[in-house]
Amino acid sequence: MTAGRIRHTVAFTLAHPEGSAAERDFLEAAERLAALPGVGAFELLAEVSSKNGYRFGISMEFADEAAYAAYNAHPDHVRFVEERWLAEVSDFLELDYVEMI
Amino acid sequence: MTAGRIRHTVAFTLAHPEGSAAERDFLEAAERLAALPGVGAFELLAEVSSKNGYRFGISMEFADEAAYAAYNAHPDHVRFVEERWLAEVSDFLELDYVEMI
Repeated sequence: MTAGRIRHTVAFTLAHPEGSAAERDFLEAAERLAALPGVGAFELLAEVSSKNGYRFGISMEFADEAAYAAYNAHPDHVRFVEERWLAEVSDFLELDYVEMI
Repeated sequence: MTAGRIRHTVAFTLAHPEGSAAERDFLEAAERLAALPGVGAFELLAEVSSKNGYRFGISMEFADEAAYAAYNAHPDHVRFVEERWLAEVSDFLELDYVEMI
């Protein structure tokens, strides 16, 4: 990762049954966040370690703090959080990484 | 990430004071894990989100489960865990990701 860049990640678990249509629909909605301005290196991932209870992960990168803040404030992101994330995610942890100085 | 590849990550906090020589020494030892067989895309990162208490992160990728298992069993990795990790890390969370099928 180049200097100044921010990798925003979140590990999460859904309230939906594994393999359900509701799960698939949520993940498809999450993937559409990749199209928002400033979002780079977007990845929707499966979490496979037995050492935690999370089942999915999202990773994306921003060029700087301003791009990250703009994403957070973007109406499509705000709507996704309010209408989908808060209703359908049962547990999550956000981790943000930058290059070590 | 290509299919089959595993991204092994760990977020962690050290028992050492921030900016201390002991902290620097630990991080330098951790960076040497990058040289072990099978380790790819190694990154030592600073965790910067205020939404959790972790201060650092390590991310690495393996081609497959066999490469990951060989790393876990490598004497240098076992020694690092026993002599450094267990003694100097105060909190951590492992998250392993693969490409969503």
